Amino acid sequence: MSPAAGEPASPPARLSAAEAVDFLQLLEKLKHLKRTGWVRSGVAGAESVADHSFRMATLALALGGAEGTDAMRCVKMALVHDVAEALVGDITPHCGVSDEEKHRREAEAMAQIASLLGGGAAAEEVSLLWHEYEQGQTAEAKLVKDLDKLEMIAQASEYEQAQGMDLSGFFRSTQGKWRTQTGGAIAEEVTRRYEAHKAQRADGGDE
Amino acid sequence: MSPAAGEPASPPARLSAAEAVDFLQLLEKLKHLKRTGWVRSGVAGAESVADHSFRMATLALALGGAEGTDAMRCVKMALVHDVAEALVGDITPHCGVSDEEKHRREAEAMAQIASLLGGGAAAEEVSLLWHEYEQGQTAEAKLVKDLDKLEMIAQASEYEQAQGMDLSGFFRSTQGKWRTQTGGAIAEEVTRRYEAHKAQRADGGDE
Repeated sequence: MSPAAGEPASPPARLSAAEAVDFLQLLEKLKHLKRTGWVRSGVAGAESVADHSFRMATLALALGGAEGTDAMRCVKMALVHDVAEALVGDITPHCGVSDEEKHRREAEAMAQIASLLGGGAAAEEVSLLWHEYEQGQTAEAKLVKDLDKLEMIAQASEYEQAQGMDLSGFFRSTQGKWRTQTGGAIAEEVTRRYEAHKAQRADGGDE
Repeated sequence: MSPAAGEPASPPARLSAAEAVDFLQLLEKLKHLKRTGWVRSGVAGAESVADHSFRMATLALALGGAEGTDAMRCVKMALVHDVAEALVGDITPHCGVSDEEKHRREAEAMAQIASLLGGGAAAEEVSLLWHEYEQGQTAEAKLVKDLDKLEMIAQASEYEQAQGMDLSGFFRSTQGKWRTQTGGAIAEEVTRRYEAHKAQRADGGDE
């Protein structure tokens, strides 16, 4: 594997090797970027944006086209929905940045990412998926936005049970905001288990 | 969102809400499971299996059907390739467990995961993807196995640069093992940058 070997290997379909490695280096940042909501709440060992995106995408895979969606489009959208955060960080409603400014910064980051990907088919696909998610109009974007919130409340429940702080505000922040029946039904089950566990703790049942 | 509300919401296509939440709880473990190779090498803040799987899957998305593969099958395979580790942990060649025993434990875990997913279409899909990856015979499995190793050497390079320990053994472990031209070409680029950075450090260029 000599770096100087000049023979042109059969190239990847859409990316040069250099673009692929640039993209790997970009995605690395999402492994290090801890989700702001947990950090602000004092969670120890808070998950990364990559952790969050992985669980969303894998749930999308398992749901497989719920709500008449294109399952694979949902999986891909879940993978890229936070990719702009590799360049601008995880901006939340508590960061003192307006929604418009957040969108502007992220859209600018997506243009940089498209350029890093070489501006061809891969760049276009990643960019289209991200903008579709942001606009939230298609069936796929609505479902993936629900998965984003579901993943969050499931994690809030897990951190609260493991670490004892009150993370009920994350549940309240989602009330009345479910865009699909699938999202609402799963949220109801997450909430049911969360409340049952809380009631058990209040009874001293597991302490 | 009353837990007792009895009206049947339109169900997800393939999973009940309870199965979806069971699956979320299972996947949570992959966020906490640190990759054994880094832990053994003394890496601080080692990434999770979820982090690793996220970057593999997102690179598969960007590569989009390299080597004549079904791009979406590669993305999905990358998402599930380590999912058995949620139950059996990240067993490496240094753990004193034979390859056969590792496979046996993981296959048993996959049967449990299929049961957790309800035994229907989602269970079947996740299970088939995992077994296809393990067998390593299809074009998709070969490419995803290369992505698994690529993701690892890229991470070795990043940790070595950030934390200073010698992780060259991870590069050596992949020599001669690339199964696709795409994987080999990207590995060559990762290695070229790794060696350039190392030479620069040796010259005192960035210290």
